[in-house]
Amino acid sequence: MANKFHLGWFLNFSSPSWLGQFDGNNDESWIDGEFYVDIVKMMERGKFDFVMFEDSLMVSDVHGGSMATDLKYNMYAPKQDPLPLMAKLGEHTKHIGLIATASTSFYPPFITARMYATLDNLTHGRIGWNVVTSSEDRAAQNFGLDLHYEHDERYEMADEYVEVVKGLWNSWDPGALVRDRETGVFADHTKVHPIDHDGKYYKVRGPLNMMPGPQGQPTLCQAGGSPRGRAFAAKHANTIICSATGVSEMKAYRDDIRARMVEAGRNPDDCKVLFVVSPVLDETDELAQAKAARRAVMTPEGMDVALAHLSALTNVDFTQFDLDAPVPEITTNGHRTTLEAFLRKGGDAGTKTLRELASMPSLNAVPFVGTPATVAQQMQDAMEQVGGDGFLISGALSRQAVAEIVDGLVPELQRRGLARTEYTHATLKDNLLAF
Amino acid sequence: MANKFHLGWFLNFSSPSWLGQFDGNNDESWIDGEFYVDIVKMMERGKFDFVMFEDSLMVSDVHGGSMATDLKYNMYAPKQDPLPLMAKLGEHTKHIGLIATASTSFYPPFITARMYATLDNLTHGRIGWNVVTSSEDRAAQNFGLDLHYEHDERYEMADEYVEVVKGLWNSWDPGALVRDRETGVFADHTKVHPIDHDGKYYKVRGPLNMMPGPQGQPTLCQAGGSPRGRAFAAKHANTIICSATGVSEMKAYRDDIRARMVEAGRNPDDCKVLFVVSPVLDETDELAQAKAARRAVMTPEGMDVALAHLSALTNVDFTQFDLDAPVPEITTNGHRTTLEAFLRKGGDAGTKTLRELASMPSLNAVPFVGTPATVAQQMQDAMEQVGGDGFLISGALSRQAVAEIVDGLVPELQRRGLARTEYTHATLKDNLLAF
Repeated sequence: MANKFHLGWFLNFSSPSWLGQFDGNNDESWIDGEFYVDIVKMMERGKFDFVMFEDSLMVSDVHGGSMATDLKYNMYAPKQDPLPLMAKLGEHTKHIGLIATASTSFYPPFITARMYATLDNLTHGRIGWNVVTSSEDRAAQNFGLDLHYEHDERYEMADEYVEVVKGLWNSWDPGALVRDRETGVFADHTKVHPIDHDGKYYKVRGPLNMMPGPQGQPTLCQAGGSPRGRAFAAKHANTIICSATGVSEMKAYRDDIRARMVEAGRNPDDCKVLFVVSPVLDETDELAQAKAARRAVMTPEGMDVALAHLSALTNVDFTQFDLDAPVPEITTNGHRTTLEAFLRKGGDAGTKTLRELASMPSLNAVPFVGTPATVAQQMQDAMEQVGGDGFLISGALSRQAVAEIVDGLVPELQRRGLARTEYTHATLKDNLLAF
Repeated sequence: MANKFHLGWFLNFSSPSWLGQFDGNNDESWIDGEFYVDIVKMMERGKFDFVMFEDSLMVSDVHGGSMATDLKYNMYAPKQDPLPLMAKLGEHTKHIGLIATASTSFYPPFITARMYATLDNLTHGRIGWNVVTSSEDRAAQNFGLDLHYEHDERYEMADEYVEVVKGLWNSWDPGALVRDRETGVFADHTKVHPIDHDGKYYKVRGPLNMMPGPQGQPTLCQAGGSPRGRAFAAKHANTIICSATGVSEMKAYRDDIRARMVEAGRNPDDCKVLFVVSPVLDETDELAQAKAARRAVMTPEGMDVALAHLSALTNVDFTQFDLDAPVPEITTNGHRTTLEAFLRKGGDAGTKTLRELASMPSLNAVPFVGTPATVAQQMQDAMEQVGGDGFLISGALSRQAVAEIVDGLVPELQRRGLARTEYTHATLKDNLLAF
C-alpha cells in the first residue's frame, strides 16, 4: 500500500506568467485577485493541502543597474501584498490552506502576530505564515536601511522574532473569552498576560490585543536551505519547501531536517517537507519529452530572465561577467543557497561558462516528464526513496497549467492512493499532520 | 431643494456591543467577520458612503492599573486587525466604501502604501485609510518604545509619513502597465521611479513594488481635533470625522477646516466633514425621548466604562480621583482633545465633580431623538446651519440598531432628498466628492 503524500502550489500575487509558452496569456483578472480565486478553487477541487504565496518587497535593479528586466518580464514586480488576498481567497474556498509570506526583517512582530491571528479567524483555521528574512538590499532600502542585515544575523533576528510572535499568540489562555451574561464578563483578564519580551533585537510588551484563531499558532512554513536556515526550519516549521536537483539530494535534505528536529526536541513527523517540482505532462510520454525539450531551449529572453533572477536573489550583477567564460569566485550577503547551487550546477565551480550554467535545467528541476500515469509513478518512486512528504508545484502559471495538474495528474495520483481524495480535518495544520 | 448629505458608520472589528441595552447580544459571528458582512450589506442597502473601522493596538490597563475593565466590557480588546476584514467585506459588497485605520506611528510606510494599494485593487477603488497617530503608551510598548512619542511630534512624523506613502502611490506613472505582446513588455521601467525619500523620520527609496489601484491615492480619512490634528487633516484628508457637542460647534469646526484647506491651497469641497451622531429612534417622539432618558441613566457599569475609556484615551488613571470632587488640573501626552472636551463638559473646568462630568451626555452627543421623521428634520436643520457635509453613525452596535437606522431613518432621509438613493460613481472617492 502506497503512502499518501502532500501537495501544495507555489504562487505569488502577480500576473500569470508573462513570458514563454503562455504567450496568449493576457489575463488582467489577477489585478483584483479573481484569477487567483479561480485557480485556488481548482486546487481545492484537487484537494491540495495549500497554496503558498511567496513575496518580495522591491523592484529589482541589480541586473545591469536597471529595473528594465524585472518590469519587462514581471519578474519581481509588480507584485501585490498577499495578506489581504488570503482573506479574499478564504471567502471562495472552504478547505484549502492559505499560506502567505511575511518578512521578519521588515514587519513589526506585533503586526505580524495580529494579522495572521485575524486571518486564522477569518479562514476558520486555514492560514499559514511563510517565514522569510528577505535577502535584497533594495528591499531593506524601502524600510530605512542602507543595506540589508548580514545573512546570519537575519536568521538570528528571525529566531527571536518568531519567539515574540509565538509569545503573542500564546498571550491569551484558552478560554479567556468567557462571554458570561450572568457576571457580565466578556473576557477574563486573569487569562491574558503581557509577554514582556526584551531581547537583543525586539522589545514587545504584549499581550496581543486579540485572542488567537482556531489553530492557536497558524501553520509555519519555511524554505531555509543554508545551515542557519535549516536549523531555523527544524526548530519552528510545520512545513518546509525545498528545492533539490534529484532524489538523493531530496533524501539527504529531509534526513538532515528530521535529525535536526529530533535534536531540537521535536517529533520529525510534525513537519512536512515538500519538494519543488514542475511536472511536464502530455498525452504520451514522447509528446511530454518533446514539450520538455522545447521548454529547455534557452531563448535570449530566457537567458535575460535567468540571469536577472540570479542577480536579484544574490545581489550580484551578472551582466558584469563574460557569458562565455567561467564565473569567477564570488560571495554574497544575498541569497546564498541560490548562488552556490547555481555555481555548482555544472559540477565543480569554475568548470562551465556562465552561458552553459544558465542554459542548464533550472535549479529545482527534479525531472518529472510524461503522461499523468508516468509522472505519478515517478512521484511515487521518488517518495518511496526519499521517505516523504510531498511536492510543491511550481513553474510557469496559467489556467491551462493548473488544469493539467489538477484535472490530469491529481486524479491519477488519487487512483493510486498517493493523494488525498477528501479533506479529513478542519484546519490547515491538522490536514497537514493527518498523514 | 434640500442638499444631500453623506453618511458613514463608525465601527471596529470587535464584538457587537456587550454592555447596555443589547444584553441579548451574544453573537459570536463577529469572530470570523460574518456579523460585519451582514451589517455592512445592510449599510450598502442604505447607500452609505462608507463604513469606517477604527483601531487600537493594545489592551488598556491605565484604569486602575489593570486590564480587567477593558476586557470585561470588550472596550479596546479583543479587537482584530481591520485590514484583512476589508478584503472580506469587499467580496460581499459592490459599492460601499471601506475605510480601515492604520497608525502612522507603528506601521512601516512601505507596508501601509502597499497594503492599501492592494486593497484598492481588490475592492475596485473602494478603500480608504483612516490616518491615526495612536495615543497610548501601551501601544507604543508593543512596538519597541518605552513611551509613545510626544503629541506634536507624532503629527510631525505623520505629516512626513503621509508624504512618503503618497510618494509611493505616485511612483508608478499612469500607463506603466504596458502589457504589449508585440514588444513583450509587461511594465515600462521608464514610468516607474524611486522616490529616494530621506527625511527627518523616514528613509524610503522606493518605488513601490506595484502599481496603484483605481483611486490612485486611496481615500484619506482623519479625525484630528487638536490644532495640529486639524492642520494635518486640512492638508491631507478627503473626509474628516468630527465629534462636536452641538450645531454651533459643528459649524465652527467645519468653517475652520475649510479655511485651513484654502490656506493649504485645496478646494474646501474636496473634503467632507462627517459629524459623529447616535440618533435615538422610536415609533413616537415620546417613546424615543423615554428611550434616550433610559440610556442616559448612569449605571455603575456605565460609570466604570466611561471612566475607563477616559483613562485609556488620555493615559491618565481616573481611579485616582475622588468621584465626588472636582477633577484637578491635568495634562496628558495621550488624546488631548478627549481630555479637554471632558473637563469642560460642565462649563469651566473645575466646576463639576468627576461623577457629574461622567454622568453627562457623551462627548459626541448632538441629541437627535425622535421618530425617523423628527430625526430627519433635525438632521436637515443641523446641516442647513452647518453647511454640510454629513453624519457618521456611532454608538452601541447591534443588528437591531443597524436596522433602525438603515430601514427606519434612511428611507425617510431619502424621501426628503437628503440622502443618496443610488451610488452614482464607481469609487469611494468619487461618490464622496459627487455632492
